[in-house]
Formats: sequence, structure tokens, C-alpha cells
Amino acid sequence: MIKKSPLAPESFPQMPVIEGVNLAVKEVGIKYNGRTDLMLAELDDGTKVAGCFTKSKTCSSNITWGREALEQGAARVLIVNSGNANAFNGRSGEESVERIVNYAAQIFSCDNEEIYPCATGVIGEPLPDDKITSSLSELKSNLQADIWEEAAKAIMTTDTYPKGCTKTAVIGEKDVNINGIAKGSGMIAPDMATMLAYIFTDANIEQEKLQQIFNKAVERSFNSITVDSDTSTSDTALIFATGKAENNIDDDFTDFEDKLQMVLLDLAHQIVKDGEGATKFVKITVTGAEDDKAAKVIAMSIANSPLVKTAIAGEDANWGRIVMAVGKSGEEADRDAMSVSVGGIQIVKDGQLNPDYNEAEVTEHMKGHDIDIQTDVAISGGEATVWTCDLTHDYITINADYRS
Amino acid sequence: MIKKSPLAPESFPQMPVIEGVNLAVKEVGIKYNGRTDLMLAELDDGTKVAGCFTKSKTCSSNITWGREALEQGAARVLIVNSGNANAFNGRSGEESVERIVNYAAQIFSCDNEEIYPCATGVIGEPLPDDKITSSLSELKSNLQADIWEEAAKAIMTTDTYPKGCTKTAVIGEKDVNINGIAKGSGMIAPDMATMLAYIFTDANIEQEKLQQIFNKAVERSFNSITVDSDTSTSDTALIFATGKAENNIDDDFTDFEDKLQMVLLDLAHQIVKDGEGATKFVKITVTGAEDDKAAKVIAMSIANSPLVKTAIAGEDANWGRIVMAVGKSGEEADRDAMSVSVGGIQIVKDGQLNPDYNEAEVTEHMKGHDIDIQTDVAISGGEATVWTCDLTHDYITINADYRS
Repeated sequence: MIKKSPLAPESFPQMPVIEGVNLAVKEVGIKYNGRTDLMLAELDDGTKVAGCFTKSKTCSSNITWGREALEQGAARVLIVNSGNANAFNGRSGEESVERIVNYAAQIFSCDNEEIYPCATGVIGEPLPDDKITSSLSELKSNLQADIWEEAAKAIMTTDTYPKGCTKTAVIGEKDVNINGIAKGSGMIAPDMATMLAYIFTDANIEQEKLQQIFNKAVERSFNSITVDSDTSTSDTALIFATGKAENNIDDDFTDFEDKLQMVLLDLAHQIVKDGEGATKFVKITVTGAEDDKAAKVIAMSIANSPLVKTAIAGEDANWGRIVMAVGKSGEEADRDAMSVSVGGIQIVKDGQLNPDYNEAEVTEHMKGHDIDIQTDVAISGGEATVWTCDLTHDYITINADYRS
Repeated sequence: MIKKSPLAPESFPQMPVIEGVNLAVKEVGIKYNGRTDLMLAELDDGTKVAGCFTKSKTCSSNITWGREALEQGAARVLIVNSGNANAFNGRSGEESVERIVNYAAQIFSCDNEEIYPCATGVIGEPLPDDKITSSLSELKSNLQADIWEEAAKAIMTTDTYPKGCTKTAVIGEKDVNINGIAKGSGMIAPDMATMLAYIFTDANIEQEKLQQIFNKAVERSFNSITVDSDTSTSDTALIFATGKAENNIDDDFTDFEDKLQMVLLDLAHQIVKDGEGATKFVKITVTGAEDDKAAKVIAMSIANSPLVKTAIAGEDANWGRIVMAVGKSGEEADRDAMSVSVGGIQIVKDGQLNPDYNEAEVTEHMKGHDIDIQTDVAISGGEATVWTCDLTHDYITINADYRS
């Protein structure tokens, strides 16, 4: 049993009912024993859906299905199993998806394209989909509106804690709720990584607008985190909007956008904090790059550098490795004008060790859980912030034994 | 003290004298104690030089100097110190290089542009260049032709063994010798990584041709290896040709090219086998890609995946992670037609687990030191081979403590 991440939040948040969303979970024994591994959400008729998927060229059959279904933009049922990713199973993977979709559409009396089946876990082992299809009726009869923590637990794989977040936004005169649950752990990198995130809101919103807002929020949250640079075949983030809040679709959505961004960022941070073996949560800010895109490339180069990540694990403010990672990114940096700060303390100034640098202060910062790295590369105004964790012995231990 | 890599060769090879090359080493205490840390090679008048340097945007002052000097194409003195990379020292780094070059040009009575100073070690600490300049006269008076192993030892940093290789080639009627020494260890990735490699030959060859042949050989050796995806600010590979073999410059250089390629590949493999914490030497071959460049991107994506590398450390033929790494590379792959073999045993066939796959045979292969991974991505005829090592607890131990 893997111990809970030292960076875990104290408790799962209290999350409100979202009108039009009902949940059920079950232990069906796909791979794990003694825990739930199947989650279902029923969504009221009229629910709009938007989403983002992995960019992997070897994505799972579930992803292929979801991408096509999204073209309709309507959802009635979300089904998520953990323990088996149904990835790289060839034709049999597609057949599993077809069977789940067909059964669920019958039981919930809706179109096939309104069913979203998701899977996470081991790659390349046939999915025992009969364990899912034979459970659908029971799940339907057990639906409840307020079991968010149970739902978040059922989708976990090597996560050490369930992840949830809720915010209330105002659209026009109406309060709308936004609830999110997610799972992460290994293979967390931009273009989504092995992560599943499901957002539910009662906002009334057009599908196209929902997709636009969601894309923007995902870019600055789930696509701005990395654990080990590896990208999964199954990454999925979906948002379901039931419309039950009955706000006017022409009202100002600014507050909704802000709150949605907060929910996604909070979930993204929780995923990083549960990165395999993580003991430090690291924020990396790059300024002065050629443009925002270049800034993100540099920030990710730092965030994915094994030498930077092991130095952080060793509580060593090894700024030489940060400079190395800037250099290898391929983006422009002015070697003789750049600066590096750790914990707000400027270590490098004008491309050289800051003469006023007090190593003891930085060492104190490195001992904490939250590490803050900033670098200005002195080219132009491009900026980006990404988040990662350190690389520790536990990462090796977890991943050298995961499959066996 | 770090123990010798289990993948180390049994002994340092017997290497012949190269006419026109003389070597000297010294312990000057730049950082290490009780070992040599300065190496000098004097090259006879008329020596041609070619080279490749890191593509890092934050490269060291030594690299900047070397790149400019190479435009002349002539070399008389190579000076290499270990323990301090003279990288990211701003103006003071440039001044160190200037002082070393000026002193050496005086002592060896040659042009500044014929001096090649190189440095490897910690980044961002001023180089105590007086320890180098004050040693030059003594080094000059101690020159010897046959101390290749001593030279290879003096340039090591966290390497656990000295690296050398020699081959004899035939050009026209003449035998020519090719000797190479190298150091590697951390930050080994394409675009050279923290590696220094120096090749010496008595071949008589035009500078331009030497550069062409060298580029090609570097691409298939030093630029086809990776330890941790990190790239150093100081990577340098130089080849010095003294011309003393007196072969005709218009003769056929095919055998020379082949033998040079062998020397570079052997040194590149030795560097990977001394990757920090390495217990497995991994060869990754990709076929069927869109073109050779795409094949190399896919091969490097597999070679740099922490999840693949930890699985190998755990002796687990986790082909799902290999498929994941193919998928995240961004290059085209036919998910439902691709294949994966480990140790020559086909695990994945037509995008699915091969029904004839015998896991026990692969498990036996995974227990060995040499791991062989092949994948065909079923798109076109592009091919590439790269080499890497596994990711182990010792990598973390070494790198979480390196600076302190």
C-alpha cells in the first residue's frame, strides 16, 4: 500500500448537489479488490457537453469514441472504469466500447452518441466489459445526487487521495454551481497525461461557447502541469452543463469563466501534488521570453528536467541545472542578461551569481513543501507558469513494480 | 565513492601512439582531490581540427571560443579541465578563457585560434583559471605519447571508468590510426549532452572533408544516445588530424569513415553504459516511420520516457509503456498495425498482444544487461537506432546530492 502524498489536502471538499446530475459507484473487480472501480453519472435530458482529449497517436478506443460523440455535443451518461485503460487492444477494444455504449443507451433510453465511456489503468489487456455492462441496471437504480467523494474515489488508479473542487459563479442574477472531480498520478504531462477530469455544472450555456471556455481553461491548468513528461493514451477532460440554473444564455459569463478556471487549476494542482513519489509542489514561472508559447516551452523544459527535479528532491537550489534546462529548451534566452530566483530570492542576476545572494535563505525555502522558481530570459514579454513535482526514490519504486 | 558501473568494459584498451600527438596530465585541485583534473594535448604544426558543440542557448564561454576558433580549422593545443564547467559565469567566464588562451599561445608559440580550452563540471562557479595557466609550462615539459588512459581519467567527472577506443583504417596504401577518449555520465542527450570526446588521428585529410565525415559520424553516435534527456552547456566533440600518416588526400576514405564511425559509436555506448545509476544498456530500433527523422523522434521518445526506463530497471517488459511513448512522440504511427519486440520476441503484432507471446522468454531477456527493443510503426520506411540506459534509484541518489 502506497502512503498518502505528503502534499495531499486535509480533506475532500463539501460539494453541493448539481441539479440534473446523479451518481452511482460499484465494486466490479476489473483489476482491484476491496474498492470501487466503476462510476456512472446520469445527466438529465438537455445536458450539453464539451471536452478535451489526449493528443497521443496511440490513443484508446474510448478516446476515439468520445471525440466522435462530442460532435453531437449532448450527453446523458458518463461511465468510468478504473484498473484497465482499454488502450491498445485493437479491434477488441473497439468492440468493448461498442458493447458498453449499446447496453447503456438501451438502459438509459438515449442515443449511443450521448454515452461517454472512459477507462483508466493498465494498457494492452482486454477490458472485461461484461463486468461493466452487467452492472448498469444496478447502478441506475442506485443513483444519488450527493456522493461526490465516492465518485472521485471510484476513478482512482495509483492516486493516493480523491480529488474534488467546487465553486459557485454568478451568471446574470443566477448562482450556478461548478463541481469537478479528477484522477491523475503517473504519465502527467501536457496534452493531458493519464488524467481524467469531469466537471459538472448547472449553468445554461450553448455548447460551442462551453467548448471555447473549456479549451481556454484547460490550456492554463491541465495542459500546464507535468509529473514525468509522459503522456497517456487515455487522457480526458469533460464538462457537462445541465442548464438547470436557468440563467439567460446571453448573460455575461465572465465570473463563470473565472470560477471554472479556478476549479480546473485546483484539480490540476491536486494531480501534481499526488504525482508518483512527490514530496514537493513546484511552481515555475518564466518571463521575458520571445512570446507566451516560447515561455511555456522553457517552463516545461525546466519542469521536465530530471536533473532539476532530483535537485529539488535533494532540497538543493541548484540553479546551474535551471540554467541548463533553459538552454536546452531551444527557445531564445540571453545568457548574459537572464535572472533566476528561487523562493523569491534572486540567485542569478545579469547572467551571473548575484553578489548579494544569501544561500541560507534559499535553503530554508527548499525545505518547505512549496517550491517557487522564477526565471527571466531577457528577450521580450512572453510569460508562462507551469506546475510540477520533484523526482524521488518513490517514483522509481512505484514505477519499477507497477504492472507486476 | 560511487561504485563502478556494472556495464563497464573489463579494461581500458591498448592504444597506439598517434604521430604528432603528445599528452600530459596533472592534479591541480580545481575541485577534486587525489586525482588528476587537467589534461593537455600538444598537436604538431599542420594539425587540422573539426568539431561539434552543444546546441544549448546557455552554452559556456569555452564553447563560444571553440566555435569561433574552428573557423580557422587549425589546432596546436587542447586543454581540458574537469571539476568546473566555466559555464554561466558571465564576463568572468570569458576572461578565464582569454587568459588560458593567451598563456597557452605564448608557451606553445602559436596563434590564439589554435588553442582549444574545454571545461566540464559544476556550472556557475568562477573557474580558478590560475591553477590552469600556472601549470602549462610543467605540462609542456612532461609531454608523453602513450598515456591515453591517464588522459581519459583526467577528464572524468562523475564517470565511474575512463573511456577509450582505437581502430586502424586503411587510406590508399597507408595504415592510419584513430584514437578516441571521452567522458560522459550526467546530462547525456542528443545535441551532445555533458560529454566531451576527443578523437586523434594521423590521417592526412582536408579540414572541410574532416568536418563533413565527423558530422555524419556524430549524428549516428553521440547524437543518438540519451541518459536523462538533459543537455549540457559544455558538450564538445573534437577531432584532430595530424596528417603524419602521409596518405594521399585524394585517396578513398571509405574505410576511414567506417572506422571513425566505430570509434565514435563505441565511445557513445561506453558513455551510456556509465549513465548515472545505469544497470541496463538499452538499444531501441524504430522502423516503419514516415522518414528517418521521424523514426529518431519516436526512438528518443521511448528512450527518454521515465516510465519505460523505470520498467526496464524493474526488469518488466512493459510494452504498454513503449506504445504510450510511441504515441506521445507526435510522429505518425498506425495503432492497429504496429508491432513491438523485446529481445527479438514479438510481443505486439498488428496492434494487439501476439497470441503466441511467451512472457517467460522475455522475462529472461529482461534479466540480462543488454536490452533490445524494436518497434515497427507501420507507416513507411523511416528507420533509426538509439541507445539509452535504465532509470534507477542510484540516479536519484547521485543527482539529489551532486552539488552538496
